[in-house]
Order: sequence, then C-alpha cells, then structure tokens
Amino acid sequence: MEIFIEPIGKLINEFSKLPGVGKKTAQRYAYKIIDMPESEARAFADAIIGVKRKVRYCSVCGNFTEEETCGICKARDKSVICVVKEPRDVAAIEKLHEFKGVYHVLHGTIDPMSGVGPNDIRIRELLARLESDGVKEVIVATNPDVSGDATAMYLARLIKPLGVTVTRLAHGIPVGSEIEYTDDVTLTRAFLERNEL
Amino acid sequence: MEIFIEPIGKLINEFSKLPGVGKKTAQRYAYKIIDMPESEARAFADAIIGVKRKVRYCSVCGNFTEEETCGICKARDKSVICVVKEPRDVAAIEKLHEFKGVYHVLHGTIDPMSGVGPNDIRIRELLARLESDGVKEVIVATNPDVSGDATAMYLARLIKPLGVTVTRLAHGIPVGSEIEYTDDVTLTRAFLERNEL
Repeated sequence: MEIFIEPIGKLINEFSKLPGVGKKTAQRYAYKIIDMPESEARAFADAIIGVKRKVRYCSVCGNFTEEETCGICKARDKSVICVVKEPRDVAAIEKLHEFKGVYHVLHGTIDPMSGVGPNDIRIRELLARLESDGVKEVIVATNPDVSGDATAMYLARLIKPLGVTVTRLAHGIPVGSEIEYTDDVTLTRAFLERNEL
Repeated sequence: MEIFIEPIGKLINEFSKLPGVGKKTAQRYAYKIIDMPESEARAFADAIIGVKRKVRYCSVCGNFTEEETCGICKARDKSVICVVKEPRDVAAIEKLHEFKGVYHVLHGTIDPMSGVGPNDIRIRELLARLESDGVKEVIVATNPDVSGDATAMYLARLIKPLGVTVTRLAHGIPVGSEIEYTDDVTLTRAFLERNEL
C-alpha cells in the first residue's frame, strides 16, 4: 500500500520539483496546503497559473514584465546599461536601490562547453540599443565564473571600439567576511583589483 | 517602484506561507515556476486544488482518505489501535512497514494552556471503537511533550479499566546518536525506561 493517498502523493511530487526541496520538506509543504482554508489554497494555485499567464519578457531589456516594455525601461536613465545573465539578477541589483540606469538581460552567458555561443544570447539586441540610445557606459554584471568572465571579455572587445565605456563589477573579499576564510581565487582577485587609499 | 512585478510578487508571497520558507527561498521557488513549461505549472496548480478537493478524513480513524473509510481501516487488523495526534504521524509510522494494526487520529492533544480539553479531540470516537471492534491493545504514539504526555496518561486511565492493554512508544537515546549529546530529559527517560539484557 502507498504511504500517501494519490492526491497527497501527487502534491508532494510537485513540491519535490522545487530547487533544494527533498521528500521530507515536500511533505511538510503538502501538509500545510491541506491545512489551509480552501480559498487560500485556491489563491496559491491561482498565483502559479497567474505567473505563467501574465509574465513575459520586456521587448527592450529582456527582463520580466506584464507589458510590452518593462517599468524600468520606461522610466529610467538610458545612458547606462547594466548587463546581466538572468532576470533574477535584475531583482538582486534593484534591491540595492543604488543603480539608476537600465538593464539588459542576456538570458545566458557564452559557454562553448554547453554549446552556447554569442549568437545564442541577446548580444545582438544589446548592440542595437547602443546605437540608438546614446549609451555612455555598459556595466557588465555577469557572474564571476568562467562563462561570465568569457562573456564580459567578449562584450568589452565588441563594445569598446564603439566609444562606449565598458566596466565590470568588482571582485574581492565580501564585506564582513574574513581574509582567513576567503577562498584562494577571490583573494587573488582582491589583490589584483586592489585600490589606492 | 516594486522590485517584483505584481504576479511574481504575489507568487513569492504565497510561497512564503509555507513552513520555514523565507523571502529568498520563496523567490527561488517562484523563478522555478516561471521557468517551467505552462503544462507543468498547471499540473502543480491542479495538485494544490486537487488535494483540497479530494482529501477528507476517514470516518473511522480520522486519517486522510479519498473515500468514506481509509484503506488502512478497511484492510488491517483491528485488534491493535495506534493513537496519534495528526494524520502526518500516520505517514511517519507507515513508512516503517512495521505496524500491522489500525490507527486513531486524535486531531490534537489535551492542552489546557491552549484551552484544548478531552472533549475537543477525538477521544469519544476512540472509546466507541474499543467497544465495538474487540480491541486488545491501544498503543499511544503521541509526541513526547507535556501535552502528548498528558494525553497518554488520560487515555491510560480511561481505557485500562475496560480491560484493554495501553502501551506507549519508548523514549530513549536515538539510535546512532551519542550519550554525550543526548539532552538531559531524554537521557533521564532512557534511565527510567532501561531494559534488562
């Protein structure tokens, strides 16, 4: 006999698909749903459907939007573009309330090992924006890994000749952490990118 | 400006209602949903709705079921009843494939501090089963806390005079753990419930 009746087993299985969720956690989530009032469970289900139905990509920057063009592209300084890999990176940067420019989401980074070349990500669209929007600076905010580094190098070589400044987010020791516990690669980068006081 | 557009913010909010899920984890879950094919997201939403629509409580034991009476009550030895607090405890015990009897889910334990008395949980239903089903043993498997202990004592006092054996799950040092790291209360119980070799 199955331990869980079919509808519960099904829900546990769905929750198990979420990142980092094992059987045990999925069970706890499923019990929580069972304990919810019906209206609350329906709101949950509607939110899942809603996100799939309403969310699309901004035709300019590639970020999540409900409309043709996202709120950031409509409202903000177009002379500085921050280039990121994924829409989720936009959310991470927006949280700082620091950056006042616009974004460009590549939807991937160059990764020959996985067969992702420059034409497979939104680089062409970025170049088009540079021409039309009077862009002064492109800040490359790809992840500090092999693929993110390669993409940054590629973009710099492509964009600098156009007279646009290309910068990249600084690498170094995370604020609040200790030198002793900083990994070797990061510590090396911190040396290479040291600043004069 | 909000960091997340409304449908995404809504879904993050829903995921935040799950036990132990903070804003960051809820975001990761929401991104996963956004990345899913529409059909998969719909299956997820349907599983949530399905569990609310199909799952009810067994009229005999109070466990989850899709029918009037659960599969365990229909098929198994009725002479031994294992009494638990919640349906989730049934799943935890069933996983062992060890217990061959039936269950009785109290849907709570006696807890005067929270205003839960014997009449607020399914004790009356348990007594009715004892009379009709020829029960030989009641195993009380409530949690080893104040409320679970009080409920076990109460049940023992009520049921023993009926000529039914009442037992309780053993407390003691968890298998595989070390005496040094066992908490005082558990270690004390392990002494009190020591067995002859």
